[in-house]
Amino acid sequence: MKALNVLLFDGFTTMDALGPAEALSRALDGELKCYEIEYFSATGGLVGGSTSAKIWTRKLSEIAKFDVLLVPGGFAARELAHDGEFIAALGELSRRHEYVIAVCTGSVLLAKTGLLDGVEATSNKLSWQWATSEAPSVRWVRAARWCVSGKFYTSSGVSAGIDAALGFIADMHGRDEAQRIAVTMEYVWNSDKNADLF
Amino acid sequence: MKALNVLLFDGFTTMDALGPAEALSRALDGELKCYEIEYFSATGGLVGGSTSAKIWTRKLSEIAKFDVLLVPGGFAARELAHDGEFIAALGELSRRHEYVIAVCTGSVLLAKTGLLDGVEATSNKLSWQWATSEAPSVRWVRAARWCVSGKFYTSSGVSAGIDAALGFIADMHGRDEAQRIAVTMEYVWNSDKNADLF
Repeated sequence: MKALNVLLFDGFTTMDALGPAEALSRALDGELKCYEIEYFSATGGLVGGSTSAKIWTRKLSEIAKFDVLLVPGGFAARELAHDGEFIAALGELSRRHEYVIAVCTGSVLLAKTGLLDGVEATSNKLSWQWATSEAPSVRWVRAARWCVSGKFYTSSGVSAGIDAALGFIADMHGRDEAQRIAVTMEYVWNSDKNADLF
Repeated sequence: MKALNVLLFDGFTTMDALGPAEALSRALDGELKCYEIEYFSATGGLVGGSTSAKIWTRKLSEIAKFDVLLVPGGFAARELAHDGEFIAALGELSRRHEYVIAVCTGSVLLAKTGLLDGVEATSNKLSWQWATSEAPSVRWVRAARWCVSGKFYTSSGVSAGIDAALGFIADMHGRDEAQRIAVTMEYVWNSDKNADLF
């Protein structure tokens, strides 16, 4: 079983994190779950987001397996993009993980680490000007539901994270598995990553 | 500001609760949020669900404002449907709230209170036979993304909860507001409640 480590911070968008987590939680290898999901934050403890749901987290320093990192966005991203300590920690984590999925303005946080310089990425369309101006060395793709650049998956806003997670599952476990999961979620998968919907 | 009270229990489906909560958290009256969202469970404390996210809850007895109740489903619903104490508490809460939104197999829990007897409701299509057999007095509607029967909103599986929440917002605050929220979530709203997608 691979580790899916979800990085939370106060002011994250709940669905950026938990929509993709819901999809990934359903990935199966035979009867076994593919991903063991844990939640982490800089200081550990309860972390609150857009829906006022407070989620229990462990400290980042307690991450033991570096398989897949999930990074949500949120209104706090505008401040965190300029928080050197946070960006340095995210950069180290992102280098160590085998894959990174960054949703919505989470892709801007990932971009601030420099790891997306010169490669394709996308982000929230409502924050597009801010997102792209924060990291001008990224090859930002507007007409994308999500982008894949090597180990980095970046998605458009909020719900697009579910589409990207299903895309990740399709790449890792096959398209049939992604489609099966979409059906269990009664979710209409926007499965063309190059189709910009917003 | 109205209270949106989310009823959680161990083994709930994370997105059943937090997808609709994400949509409702964005409803605005001018610049003010329409809903103050709080999370409750029978015993209070941390409650875990499908994504392994543990969410902090207060005790049901601490609910002070009875505006909107949100009831998710989940694998635990099969057991809870036969938990007399839980169903009695849900019945009392549902009677006291002005509106109830029940998602996925959450609608079966609501049905077990008897409050849906003789009225239209829907539920998860993958658990359809179980759902309908648990509460045969409900007028179950298979060809529905969600149903509205007076103050009771019931939805199909998981993602359909977001559609129902947007439908609720359309009914309460106008269709433009629902559409605006869908755009901020970059979500393709399945806005026809009578269109069964699964």
